[in-house]
Order: sequence, then structure tokens, then C-alpha cells
Amino acid sequence: MDEVAFRFFQEKHFEEAALVVGLPGIGSVALLAADQLISELKAEKLADVYSVHLPARVFVDNDGIAGLINNELYCYEQEGSAILILTGASQAQSQEGQWIMVQRIIEEVKKMGVNFIITMGGYAVSRLVDNPRVLGAATTKSLIKKYEKYDVLFGHGEPGGGIVGASGLFLGLGKLEGIEGICLMGETSGYMPDPVAAKKVLQVISKALELNINYSELDEKAKQIELIEEQLKESVQKSESDEALRYIG
Amino acid sequence: MDEVAFRFFQEKHFEEAALVVGLPGIGSVALLAADQLISELKAEKLADVYSVHLPARVFVDNDGIAGLINNELYCYEQEGSAILILTGASQAQSQEGQWIMVQRIIEEVKKMGVNFIITMGGYAVSRLVDNPRVLGAATTKSLIKKYEKYDVLFGHGEPGGGIVGASGLFLGLGKLEGIEGICLMGETSGYMPDPVAAKKVLQVISKALELNINYSELDEKAKQIELIEEQLKESVQKSESDEALRYIG
Amino acid sequence: MDEVAFRFFQEKHFEEAALVVGLPGIGSVALLAADQLISELKAEKLADVYSVHLPARVFVDNDGIAGLINNELYCYEQEGSAILILTGASQAQSQEGQWIMVQRIIEEVKKMGVNFIITMGGYAVSRLVDNPRVLGAATTKSLIKKYEKYDVLFGHGEPGGGIVGASGLFLGLGKLEGIEGICLMGETSGYMPDPVAAKKVLQVISKALELNINYSELDEKAKQIELIEEQLKESVQKSESDEALRYIG
Amino acid sequence: MDEVAFRFFQEKHFEEAALVVGLPGIGSVALLAADQLISELKAEKLADVYSVHLPARVFVDNDGIAGLINNELYCYEQEGSAILILTGASQAQSQEGQWIMVQRIIEEVKKMGVNFIITMGGYAVSRLVDNPRVLGAATTKSLIKKYEKYDVLFGHGEPGGGIVGASGLFLGLGKLEGIEGICLMGETSGYMPDPVAAKKVLQVISKALELNINYSELDEKAKQIELIEEQLKESVQKSESDEALRYIG
Repeated sequence: MDEVAFRFFQEKHFEEAALVVGLPGIGSVALLAADQLISELKAEKLADVYSVHLPARVFVDNDGIAGLINNELYCYEQEGSAILILTGASQAQSQEGQWIMVQRIIEEVKKMGVNFIITMGGYAVSRLVDNPRVLGAATTKSLIKKYEKYDVLFGHGEPGGGIVGASGLFLGLGKLEGIEGICLMGETSGYMPDPVAAKKVLQVISKALELNINYSELDEKAKQIELIEEQLKESVQKSESDEALRYIG
Repeated sequence: MDEVAFRFFQEKHFEEAALVVGLPGIGSVALLAADQLISELKAEKLADVYSVHLPARVFVDNDGIAGLINNELYCYEQEGSAILILTGASQAQSQEGQWIMVQRIIEEVKKMGVNFIITMGGYAVSRLVDNPRVLGAATTKSLIKKYEKYDVLFGHGEPGGGIVGASGLFLGLGKLEGIEGICLMGETSGYMPDPVAAKKVLQVISKALELNINYSELDEKAKQIELIEEQLKESVQKSESDEALRYIG
Repeated sequence: MDEVAFRFFQEKHFEEAALVVGLPGIGSVALLAADQLISELKAEKLADVYSVHLPARVFVDNDGIAGLINNELYCYEQEGSAILILTGASQAQSQEGQWIMVQRIIEEVKKMGVNFIITMGGYAVSRLVDNPRVLGAATTKSLIKKYEKYDVLFGHGEPGGGIVGASGLFLGLGKLEGIEGICLMGETSGYMPDPVAAKKVLQVISKALELNINYSELDEKAKQIELIEEQLKESVQKSESDEALRYIG
Repeated sequence: MDEVAFRFFQEKHFEEAALVVGLPGIGSVALLAADQLISELKAEKLADVYSVHLPARVFVDNDGIAGLINNELYCYEQEGSAILILTGASQAQSQEGQWIMVQRIIEEVKKMGVNFIITMGGYAVSRLVDNPRVLGAATTKSLIKKYEKYDVLFGHGEPGGGIVGASGLFLGLGKLEGIEGICLMGETSGYMPDPVAAKKVLQVISKALELNINYSELDEKAKQIELIEEQLKESVQKSESDEALRYIG
């Protein structure tokens, strides 16, 4: 096995294709969005990506079947062009590993015709967010102009520290390879998986790529998360009032 | 020396062979089981495995003789087929090292005819266990079906976090190479070396591979561990009652 | 992409050239000095340097444009000879990465004619410094003799622990390649970016390389930092006197 | 520069040669002994060894001259055979680096005729030691037999954890290359550089290799360390009696 190894299930080449990257990260925003996108588009699996830079771990499913941690490349074709979706259980563990994995994946998808990259992510604000904004960063001004129409906010010091990990490197290394890219970050508390932020990000993508996405699954997940948050709040309030009683008693 | 280097003492090729992996880990379950298996089967040493991914350390035996930390490959032949046993003083130290060592070892044993891998391990439950279960994870459904007959439990969310390290990677990377595999994990507190869990795991393997194993050595070790545990309990109780006296006095 | 990759915007070769290295470090002394030097000399960008040893991160500017973290090589030509300036947003993250990046950069600039290296840095003394000294270390005695004329202090146990990171390695690895080098370290508290120390270092360089530098930008930054320091002092004094009041009240 | 790079000042080949390894470690025992050996034998420098696995740092001497951290190989010739001495300011920083550096150095010295390796070290006992023992570990029984005559103690569970770092790997990797080796460890508190332990180790080596060593330098250093220790003791006692006074007063 090479440092980064691809297992292709089918060989595909497109005149042009967009790569949408949804790997684990803040609030699982990107992962939730990628899952929804794959299931909504009924995208087919093109390849598994293995790497020594992923954790040395196998997953075990509910039947007891074990499988290596990997990244997965899915594909949705539409008249000549295509949308590839990269997702997976982990990003590379080290900074060097990040560079190497992203670079190798760009190399492969470029051969398949990818000429545009969208990376997704969460933008942690460390407080509950009612109506999450979508922040963006892009490699060209024309992309910024286009996505501002979809209510994506650019610049003004956000995100302050830049974009770390795969979401950032796919833009930066793609740029070096002549591939335009944009990163869409859904605002999120960062405390919990955030299907609301994921939906907001997907809404931008579906407008930009002219997709027809149903969000009922994400809405359902959002309700579950809301329920958990309310239970947490109640238990916190209860323990605080118990605390108060103790002070009084 | 290569990143992973093999020193073969004899060249062997089999029509089919099983590799049993017993490296250091939780409760030393796998290591204890591998030791017992090697001594019971009077397995012969086939090879030493050295790697820059093992700790930079030599062991010194009771006579003062120094030797490099390594992994060791043993072999027990039975009419055309064979059981190889991999054991050693350490797993690779880094995640990347784990991937690279496991991958190279699979490459070598595949050449020798290995077409089935059993990895052993401990499953830490952080409480004392009277009658340890054996949990399993496998790469095929037919393996699960077969090992359920030997009272191995599969799935239902255990192990939750998957299987880390060599025990997991041998399954996952073996699968990529077309080698079926199963991991057998003996339930253990994780506080101490656990010969009881090791015996339970070995009992499954001896049924599956039709081996005749005597467990008196492991039973003996189990008694010693039990003795140590009782002494620990007594000293804890004594110090607690001393503590109580101090409060009273 | 190689482990260290160069993107040249123009190809240049000089009969002789000096490389001035100003990368992030203590008190941002080197970075501030390099920025000033580049803007004062109106140096042109020669190349971008990318590496897997830099953080896996992109920067986002105020317009929302994303770009990879890199090092940058600038050039100021003057009659046959030249001054190259290396700066950037980060040094390599690991010790091995430092060795590898510095070595590759030396290799490239040597081909362009560099036969002398000046590295800049801060020398942290962990107290406020009114009139910072410039300490030096060099690879030859004649360099020490020359720079002592510009009030650079050498030896006598300073810097005690040697010079870590790129500032040190450019000297040491340059020496192996037959390139003379000197490191100029501006004394600084180390608490804050220090434009005063940066100016002191630049003053030495402008004397040695016969440059005509205007320091008004650094002076302006120094005033801003001074202002911040005074506000900090006041707020500390205020909180101390509040504290005193509380003890009294 | 390669991962490990050699700069030879002279080319040498011997019918047989011993390599004595004295790198930084516990109580600086090995380093002190190597320094003394080099100066007593007036050994000549054969080579500098540089590596990306050493710290990214240059040293600065009292004159302000900077030089890369390295390892150094010295040579003392005596009628056909020779003693090589390896010393330096640092061992490799990572475990992998240790394996790679030791392996490359063995490769080089083997070509020069080295057929025997002595590594030196400190054996930390975490208490003051009046008359330090010398413990040993070797790769052959005949070496143990020989060195027991020089009052070196072998086995019986010491050193318990084996030998870490270069002192261990030179034995272990040398063994793989057919080179016999012994490690001599001077017992030391581990709190301070220990010239007494260094002398004890050197006395064994001078007997074994039939060298005539004068220990006055080490004796002098031992007196200085003793003085420092006494001052420390006094200041501790003084602060304790001050403390007592405070309780009384």
C-alpha cells in the first residue's frame, strides 16, 4: 500500500466536475451535509481511500463486521458534468499527513475532470446560534461575487485564524493546481453535531449547483438534537434549583 | 535495515496457513495467549521482525545478554497447513508505524500461504470480571456464523470505538489483500495481566483450529494473579480500617 | 508537490547575493524587520515556498480570499549583486521539518548566487528593555570583526542555549555549503511584537549592506505598541488600587 | 544532505577497531568519559555526523562562532588496530531517528573495520552513591565472562527496563551486523553530571583495551561537583533551620 492508496470501483472521466468535501470536523457540519448530499443524490461510490495518515483503527458495525477507517469518494452524474463527494470517518492525524492526503486526492480527482472544489465546515462561535450564518472563503473574487448572491458572508476578519485541516488545504492546494475553490462554513456552537448548520450549507450548495435537495432527514436530526439540548438545559436547571435548595435548607 | 526488516531462520511455504496475532495490549490477554500457544504447540521460530517503528530499546535478560526489541514469527505445521503465531515485546509506537508494520508483515506471511488471520486482544470493562465473555469482530459474515458456535459474541455496539492498533489493522489490511480475519477479545478488567481472559480466547481458537491445548500454565498464572489481587484487597481494607481507627482515636 | 516546493515567478542569477532571513519568532523581531526591508527596498517577489512541514492551514484575507501558508522569497537588485529576503507566515513545525526546509532553501538560493546569509531574530530577556542591544553569532571570525564595528555584541555566553530554528540552521547548514553567515538578534522582552528591536537589527543590516532605510513605519508601530503597553500598565495599576481599596474597605 | 550525513576529514581503514560510544545521557556519564578518553588519547577527529534527527539548533561558542549540533567521530590508532570514539551534543530526538542514526553510523564504522562496540552510560538509582558500581550488558556470553574480571556486574534484573537510546541500539543493531558489543553503565544518582561514575566506567575500558589513562581531569571535575553538592546541602540545612526558627518565633 502506498502512503495514500485508492481502490476504484469504477473508472470515470468527466468534461467537468465539482468536488464537494465533507469530512469530520467542527459540529460535524460537513459530515452531516455530505451524508445528506450522498443519500439525496443517490450518489454511487467510486473509490475508497486508505492512508497510513488515518488512525490505526478498524470500525466494527452492529453485525460485528470490521472494516478499515477510510475516506470515500462518491459520484453523481448529470449530463456530461458530475459532482464528486468526498467523505469519511477521519481526516489525516498529522499536519504532514493532511498535506499529503489532500494533495494525492486532488491529483486523482483532477485526472477525473474536477475543475472546482467546494469544501464544507463548521465555524465555531462557542454560543448557541439560532439562525446560523454561512461564512465563506474562496480562491477567486468571481467566486466570492457569485456566492454572495446566496447570502454567504466573506471576509471582515472571519474566520480569524484561517481555515485549518482538509477544508483549507483543498482550497490552497487546489489553487496551486489551477482548480478554483470555495469553503462554506456553517455557524455553529461547536458543542454538538449541528444539522441546522449543515442544512444552511447545503442550501447554498444546492442553489449554486442547481440541485434539488430534500432536507427532511436533516430536519429530523435537528429535532432530535434540540430535544437533547432541552433535556440538558432542564437537568442543569434542576440541579441548579437543587443547589439553591441546599443553600437554603 | 529497511523500515521493517525480516530475519528468516527457515524458509517455509504452505498451501494454507492461519496467522494468529498476539501482541502486547489490554490485560496482556493476547500476549499471554500467544505465549501459551507457542509453548503448547512447541512452535518453531521462523523469523525475527525489526522496525524503526518499535521503541529504541534493547532488553537485557537475567544473564546480562542484550537483544533488540522485535516481533517474532513462530510456526506450527500440521499436514500441509500451518499455524503461524506472531508475538513480540511491543507494537509500533506511532499510528503510521502501525500501518506500515502490519502491512509489511501481511505481505510476507501472504507469500508463505497465510489465507486466514486471527487477532487476539483484551476488551477492557474497567471492573472485575468473574466469567469473561469473548467478543468478536470479523471481516465476513460466514466467519461470524462459524465463531458464534464457539460462544463468541458479535456486534450490538461492542466494541464501541472499534479496534485500535495491530489487532484491528491485521483484519482491515488483510481484508484489502483478500485474507479473511477475525479478532477475538477476552473481556478483562484491564487492571492486571489476565490469564483467565487469555484462556477463554485460546479455548475458542483451539476449537476453531482443532488444537489440543493444555491450560495448566495459564491456570497457574491465574492463581498467582488472584493471590496478588487478594493481597491488594486486604491491604486496602486494612488501611481503610486503620483510617477508621484514626478517625475514632 | 515535493516535500518542499518552489514556485518561481522569475528566474534570477547573480554574481553574488546576500540572503536576509526574517521568519516568525521571538517578539516578531525578524518578521517586522523583513516586512520593513521588503517595503523600503520595493523588493520584488521571486518565489513562493510551500512545504508539508508548514501548518496545514490557509489564511483568509479581509476580502475572503484564501491562500496557503507559505514562505516567500523577495529580491532587491543592485548592480550585479542582490539582496534576497526570505519571509513567511510560519517556520516548519517539526525539528526534522526545519532541517529539511532550510536545507532545500539554501540549495535553491545557492544556485541563484547567494554567498552570504544574514538571519534575524529576537533575543528574549523576559523584562522590558529600554535600549535594546543587538547580539550576534557568526560562522567566521572576520564577520564578527566586521559587525562589532556596528555595535553588535558577540559571545560571552549569549545566547546561552544557542540559536534554535531557522535562524540557527541557516547559519549551520550554510556553513556546510561554504556560505558565510551571521545571525543578528534584537534584545526584546518577548512579551509583544517589538518594532524597536526590529529597527535596531535593521540599522545594523543597512550599515553592513549599505542600504538607505527609512524607519518611520517601524517607529509608528513602536508608538502603537507603547500605547498598548501603557494602557496595560494603567489597567494593572487600577486593578491593584481597586484591590487595595477592597482590603481597606 | 541525507537523513544522516557524514563529513570525513580523513579516510581510514583498520584491520580491526573498537568503537566507544559516549553520547549525552543520564548523569552525563558517557559524555564525560568520552571527553576524557579523547583528550587523554589525543584522538584525532575523523568525521562530523549531521542529521535531521538531531535538534534544529546551532551552538554558539564564547567567541560568538556558531556551529551545527552534530555527532563527532574521533580516532586513536595503535599498531594496525584502532579505537574510534563517537561523541556529540545530542542523541536523535525521536525513536525512529535513534534507529536510523545508529544504523547509519554502524554501517559507516563497519566499513572502517569496527568489529567491537563499547557503549557507555549512566545507571540512575535516584540516591547519592558513594562508590558507584559498573553494570554491564553484552551481546555474547564470552564478553560477559571477560568483563566480569574487571568487576562489571551483569544481569540479576539490572537494568530492569533494558537500555534505551543509542547505548542500547548500538548493541542490538551491531549484533544484527555481526559486531559484538557491550554496554558499561556507571551507577549514578542521576541528579548531576557524575565524573566519579565516568571514571569508574573508563577504568574498566582502560583495563579491557589496555589503555593508559590519567584521571586527574575527571578527579578535578568530581571535586567541583562535590563542592556544589555541599553548598546545596548547606543551603538546604540553613533554610530548614530558618524554617524551624520561624516556627519557634
